[in-house]
Amino acid sequence: MEQSDSHNRRYVLAQRPKGEPDGDTLRLETAEIPVPAKGQMLLRNVFLSLDPYMRGRMSDAPSYAPPVELNEVMVGGTVAQVVSSDVEGFAEGDWVVAFGGWQDYALSDGTGVINMGRNPENPSWALGVLGMPGLTAWAGLTQIGQPKAGETLVVAGASGPVGATVGQIGKILGCRVVGIAGGAEKCRHVIDVLGFDDCIDYKADGFAQTLGAALPNGIDIYFENVGGAVFDAVLPLLNTNARIPVCGLISQYNATSLPDGPDRMGLLMGTILKKRMTMRGFIVFDDFGHLYPEFAKQMSGWVQDGRIKYREEMIDGLEQAPAAFVGLLKGEAFGKRVIRLAK
Amino acid sequence: MEQSDSHNRRYVLAQRPKGEPDGDTLRLETAEIPVPAKGQMLLRNVFLSLDPYMRGRMSDAPSYAPPVELNEVMVGGTVAQVVSSDVEGFAEGDWVVAFGGWQDYALSDGTGVINMGRNPENPSWALGVLGMPGLTAWAGLTQIGQPKAGETLVVAGASGPVGATVGQIGKILGCRVVGIAGGAEKCRHVIDVLGFDDCIDYKADGFAQTLGAALPNGIDIYFENVGGAVFDAVLPLLNTNARIPVCGLISQYNATSLPDGPDRMGLLMGTILKKRMTMRGFIVFDDFGHLYPEFAKQMSGWVQDGRIKYREEMIDGLEQAPAAFVGLLKGEAFGKRVIRLAK
Repeated sequence: MEQSDSHNRRYVLAQRPKGEPDGDTLRLETAEIPVPAKGQMLLRNVFLSLDPYMRGRMSDAPSYAPPVELNEVMVGGTVAQVVSSDVEGFAEGDWVVAFGGWQDYALSDGTGVINMGRNPENPSWALGVLGMPGLTAWAGLTQIGQPKAGETLVVAGASGPVGATVGQIGKILGCRVVGIAGGAEKCRHVIDVLGFDDCIDYKADGFAQTLGAALPNGIDIYFENVGGAVFDAVLPLLNTNARIPVCGLISQYNATSLPDGPDRMGLLMGTILKKRMTMRGFIVFDDFGHLYPEFAKQMSGWVQDGRIKYREEMIDGLEQAPAAFVGLLKGEAFGKRVIRLAK
Repeated sequence: MEQSDSHNRRYVLAQRPKGEPDGDTLRLETAEIPVPAKGQMLLRNVFLSLDPYMRGRMSDAPSYAPPVELNEVMVGGTVAQVVSSDVEGFAEGDWVVAFGGWQDYALSDGTGVINMGRNPENPSWALGVLGMPGLTAWAGLTQIGQPKAGETLVVAGASGPVGATVGQIGKILGCRVVGIAGGAEKCRHVIDVLGFDDCIDYKADGFAQTLGAALPNGIDIYFENVGGAVFDAVLPLLNTNARIPVCGLISQYNATSLPDGPDRMGLLMGTILKKRMTMRGFIVFDDFGHLYPEFAKQMSGWVQDGRIKYREEMIDGLEQAPAAFVGLLKGEAFGKRVIRLAK
């Protein structure tokens, strides 16, 4: 079933998942195309971003953002075209970046929507390296990681849209950069295409030993996207005064209970104390949204100059979104996963 | 046995403790008074500071500072008088703050030694509110905690030399300050003398519930001195954007193994992420030593004005030091524990 101009396909949250989202989590509905009121515009979503944070919005556990309500449309960043507009600064045919959700059509009063004009190059990149994941990488690394030339930066999720960008910025800033990714193919990409100094496969036997051997000078900055066994291997390698931007913990988003003991919470705190480390969690728009203009200027320059490479994994069809999202949480994505809703 | 001018009593590290230090950990020796070489001075220790960090120096586990070697004198901050000096700026009779260790006499070339002159008021306070613990409190709170008026500050170890000072500075800066201390008498002191808004007894039944009830607006800054069950109660009360200076973890210094599970390391990291918290460990002279002059000026003003109160627990006799130190780790001290080596 393709996008049409006669109705609105949409995924609503049918049930809060216990553990991994499954066939009962989201429900595909066909509804009327919404009618914009005065001061609104109608957007036709062309690209839908899939991002790990969406797992959190499916749960009603306390978190930094309110959960999606049951039977409401699943949230998500989109690149869309304006169908009709009663919002100043937006006209029919404009390409925009919005928060249009898992559906074909969305209404907006323009709040938080960025107009990319009539003919943007690579409009979907606004969901990746030039958008939220790019800002996440840039701000988390520069503001919390505070890299200095000659330091060692380790990046989890190194082939993903955030990690790939973090590592490439680290190289530009003069760091030695070691990535961690899942599988030999991703690791080759991280080294050969993205230009990291090294990349360690966390799925390979002896991962912790291999990682340690690749880091004779320890770790000054660890950009955390993953948690779990990857962090277990990283923890003993952290240097005095290490900085750890905590951006994501994808390995534990589907967890339904705490892992077995011993309890290492005090061990982590003791390490933070003894190594005088800084660990800081952040949510990009809440903490660093004010830096967006500076980011956009610097990053678009780097992308144009070819200093920052970007890989997309484009998947056709809204109906592919639920399975693609589950795969994303399992580490199956290779590059920024985007759903194309319409040609 | 009292301090004499004929020999040097000294405690050396006889054996690294497993768990709590015991009678085999330190050995009291009688030795010659050391003879200063050219460019050195001889110090007679009058006051010896007891501090929780000393437990770490007894171990050879990796830490921020090298361990005390076996059969070497146990390290410690001291207030001393100069017996003889070949160091510029120091003359016989001067009072100094030094790192003279658990002994009657020490040599120094003047490095890191502060001259307090001939007749300082309350010379032993240089081991507390006007010295390392005071700087720890002041720098950890202002540099990492970054308190803003109206915020809620919670201080563990509230009757100790660091915690008491942290809370009083918090009040000066306009925070609501809630202390945590062990026992009703300490809590009364924290409220009535130190002027905290509230103080919760962690030894009382229902501690976690009482703490939660005392903090209807949650916690913006948690100054960590303790860890363990106190942190367990604090964790769910932390607000978005909370700052946690990790200054000490006294509850776990004697631990010989990790606690039973479940493993809450990922839970802590998830909380840091979701609440966008900052957790930072620090070692005061390494991280903030350069701020000492600013600290000394501000703190001595506050102490003179009576805005910062200070409680010492003076214990007579070097031979009391080992037991007094074990008690300190158990939370038995009430105020800054200092050993007086000589009248």
